Amino acid sequence: MIPKEEIWEIIRGYDKDNLTIATICSHSSLQIFHGAHQESFKTLGICIGQPPKFYDAFPLAKPKKFVCMDSYKALLDYCDDLVEENTIIIPHGSLVEYLGIENFESLAVPAFGNRRVLAWESDREMEREWLLKAGVNVPMRFEKAEDIDRPVIVKYHGAKGGKGFFIAKNKDELQDKMGSKQQKYTIQEFILGTRYYIHFFYSPIRSQGYKLKKGTLDMLGIDRRVESNADEIFRIGSMNELAEAGIFPSFVVTGNLPLVLRESLLSKVFELGERVVETSIDLFGGMLGPFSLETIVTDDLEFKVFEISARIVAGTNLFISGSPYSDLIERNLSTGRRIAKEIKMAGELKLMHEIIT
Amino acid sequence: MIPKEEIWEIIRGYDKDNLTIATICSHSSLQIFHGAHQESFKTLGICIGQPPKFYDAFPLAKPKKFVCMDSYKALLDYCDDLVEENTIIIPHGSLVEYLGIENFESLAVPAFGNRRVLAWESDREMEREWLLKAGVNVPMRFEKAEDIDRPVIVKYHGAKGGKGFFIAKNKDELQDKMGSKQQKYTIQEFILGTRYYIHFFYSPIRSQGYKLKKGTLDMLGIDRRVESNADEIFRIGSMNELAEAGIFPSFVVTGNLPLVLRESLLSKVFELGERVVETSIDLFGGMLGPFSLETIVTDDLEFKVFEISARIVAGTNLFISGSPYSDLIERNLSTGRRIAKEIKMAGELKLMHEIIT
Amino acid sequence: MIPKEEIWEIIRGYDKDNLTIATICSHSSLQIFHGAHQESFKTLGICIGQPPKFYDAFPLAKPKKFVCMDSYKALLDYCDDLVEENTIIIPHGSLVEYLGIENFESLAVPAFGNRRVLAWESDREMEREWLLKAGVNVPMRFEKAEDIDRPVIVKYHGAKGGKGFFIAKNKDELQDKMGSKQQKYTIQEFILGTRYYIHFFYSPIRSQGYKLKKGTLDMLGIDRRVESNADEIFRIGSMNELAEAGIFPSFVVTGNLPLVLRESLLSKVFELGERVVETSIDLFGGMLGPFSLETIVTDDLEFKVFEISARIVAGTNLFISGSPYSDLIERNLSTGRRIAKEIKMAGELKLMHEIIT
Repeated sequence: MIPKEEIWEIIRGYDKDNLTIATICSHSSLQIFHGAHQESFKTLGICIGQPPKFYDAFPLAKPKKFVCMDSYKALLDYCDDLVEENTIIIPHGSLVEYLGIENFESLAVPAFGNRRVLAWESDREMEREWLLKAGVNVPMRFEKAEDIDRPVIVKYHGAKGGKGFFIAKNKDELQDKMGSKQQKYTIQEFILGTRYYIHFFYSPIRSQGYKLKKGTLDMLGIDRRVESNADEIFRIGSMNELAEAGIFPSFVVTGNLPLVLRESLLSKVFELGERVVETSIDLFGGMLGPFSLETIVTDDLEFKVFEISARIVAGTNLFISGSPYSDLIERNLSTGRRIAKEIKMAGELKLMHEIIT
Repeated sequence: MIPKEEIWEIIRGYDKDNLTIATICSHSSLQIFHGAHQESFKTLGICIGQPPKFYDAFPLAKPKKFVCMDSYKALLDYCDDLVEENTIIIPHGSLVEYLGIENFESLAVPAFGNRRVLAWESDREMEREWLLKAGVNVPMRFEKAEDIDRPVIVKYHGAKGGKGFFIAKNKDELQDKMGSKQQKYTIQEFILGTRYYIHFFYSPIRSQGYKLKKGTLDMLGIDRRVESNADEIFRIGSMNELAEAGIFPSFVVTGNLPLVLRESLLSKVFELGERVVETSIDLFGGMLGPFSLETIVTDDLEFKVFEISARIVAGTNLFISGSPYSDLIERNLSTGRRIAKEIKMAGELKLMHEIIT
Repeated sequence: MIPKEEIWEIIRGYDKDNLTIATICSHSSLQIFHGAHQESFKTLGICIGQPPKFYDAFPLAKPKKFVCMDSYKALLDYCDDLVEENTIIIPHGSLVEYLGIENFESLAVPAFGNRRVLAWESDREMEREWLLKAGVNVPMRFEKAEDIDRPVIVKYHGAKGGKGFFIAKNKDELQDKMGSKQQKYTIQEFILGTRYYIHFFYSPIRSQGYKLKKGTLDMLGIDRRVESNADEIFRIGSMNELAEAGIFPSFVVTGNLPLVLRESLLSKVFELGERVVETSIDLFGGMLGPFSLETIVTDDLEFKVFEISARIVAGTNLFISGSPYSDLIERNLSTGRRIAKEIKMAGELKLMHEIIT
């Protein structure tokens, strides 16, 4: 991990009136660049090979410059060039995945947010510890197939993007479906309810708004992930009918659709966000900027949190020009723009070291 | 029921240039306050205990003032204070639920809309009479389990928010599922189709637009309610498979998602709205302002209306800054704002007694 | 087919500063008229009998004039009147359906786009040839029920709007469901995945943007069709359970809901659009203006294209004031407005013959 002090030294040398916001050309980059342009930043797209042609179709989101590399690892060799351009990198899911946590942690370029969060977010055990310490409801876990007394979802270790998950309604079904597979797995309670992926933004430096011990918390939108093929598989038959035909559900995210929650649940939503942020401060000095809680709302109107994403999530791409929630803060406020505003405010308040590592 | 004349007497004493729009802090209050601010009204949030902290996160929707009480019933003791502030109360689903119909009916504060509608909307028999008189298609009802010849939904009386409903595909399944339970129930045809919750606004005082015998009708948006756990239960198995595992669907509304209807169905949509309004005028002097028809569109492109909500519905919360329909009327027109505009227009036209009871 | 030269002759006589945009009052007409008004065109609604009253509810989308006829076929007798008004007709799904392809092909009024596309789009064999030549993935087809080795969807010929389709998981189920019906049918692979209906716009005359060999390609939004009763039938049981109760799924489009795709799939999206456009130029001189690819995204993140609509689709009605994609091009850009802008640009560049046939 590159020491914070080293990054702060770099940023002290930056021309604050001439910053560049950079990210890898994927995931939520259109939104990040668009938001940066709205706040008058220069932008830089990092890509492999040629710049993706599709940016030409979206002039408001096309970065002003591209840095093209042979592999994402090569980014480590470009640090001086990025620093030259007064660059702040915005991490997103694909950036971390493509670059690898260790490479990102050691990258000698200022990045928005606390890099320490990645270790906590990417390791299921640490993430669970974080959630449990925060006192939020999480799905139960079962050590052994024999113990289960309710529907479960089984996740094979190393399974990517939702493949290698399966669902069982009870112990017999679980044992049938597992067969004699030797791979490691986690058995988790399958919560019956409806999914809401809630987009938060924590600012450690802002004083107006929903106040935490330090700084403020926004809620900028809500989406539901669209999972292939699980979300449409019912059209052909039930899980059992399909299993007999050798067809199994998969949970690969292909996109997102917009939602709102019952207003009476908003107090709980903010409490969840608050607890997770405050706990992160105790555990590792704090997560900041955009994060998402992936929740299921049961028919008792309780939230179960099954995952944290401690960075901008792709569901925010629905709300390029505002959501039913961010419209109550200010017009045209995407999460991408909120990031750019936070960097601007930190520059004006000379608090850049609070939001950059 | 407080006599209209008494309310009109109160409102004659109001400073019309200094009105306050008030509602209970739940349901669609963010939208109602936001719309009131857009039309330059003062706003007042009514709450139990401390004001919900989450309003701090939404500055454009935070009411200018709060009245905090120990219980909603205590609102009855605050009437003089509210009248002092030239207050008009906007009823919504939670207001009626928390306060109780009788308390709301006798509340000596001007309220937007016709309080007489509540009795008609909240009683299933009266609501059905209203719909049948309006000549709209409603799901069939069966007196006895023996009579059913199609899929049905069974609703136990007193069941709240969708719990205590179940679905049966045919008579055998119904009898199996009912067992020997002694609770009272209603058996209703289960309509196969897709759900559309249509948001209307009836103005008795406006002259421009889609004209009724008196006044005009708007259609401001459409949502689909997200019901926990019914909307995602297919992920684990079919109704029968689940029943065998002791798992049953529930129909508790947790949120809403946005939709549009085939344009060729819009003539029917407006006819439905028109019939329901005109009938309400005959039956009880008329519903006014926002209302919603909860419909199912069959594969014959017929609408079946299974419920009326005679006030603002939570699905309108999707459209804080306009919907694909209200954008064709004027930009940034939420139902909350439409209410504020109606009150403003009534003030200007000196027709407040037409929209207030 | 009316010769292009004849249409161009007509349009040479037009007063280019005084054009009228016309369409049939259905499908996406609100959006088309609204977009035309935004670009300061006159508008004309073509309807049977009286103008639909619902336009009164949407003042920004109400056409300035109506032409009312006894039958759509009578439109052929109104050509001179339409030409008199400098009219350009915008075809949409209902226009083609109501008028008939042959009548539309011979209509002596300038129409936006290439009329030659209709033959290719409306005939399943020709559409498939087009897609295969474009090198995009399409669902497999099976000649005989005996050959099937995967889930299939069976479409009876002449079935309208999704009725007369059924799904079978395997050969046995297919044979059971087909029984001894003598109607002609097509057996197509049923792709497991999630549906995305992608809205493109191809301009042969614009030079800025995502470039094709000639002109540019936009992607303006994505929807999912809501199909009655298939999309909600799971609430009552699985396909097999329902079939036993004599209940079958149907696929009649009743509306649309908004979606976004994973950003990492956008390169593929534009490649699909590009291939389909370039191939159309080779095959029949090119499709232009709005078109839609109806796709399924599998859990391998591959697109399967199951249909082309070579004109504005109703899913664009969600995005009257912009989508998460068109907002990155310019604000308030619906497909209807994009059409109006294309006509305006063609007028200014004196390239009307490139976009009108």
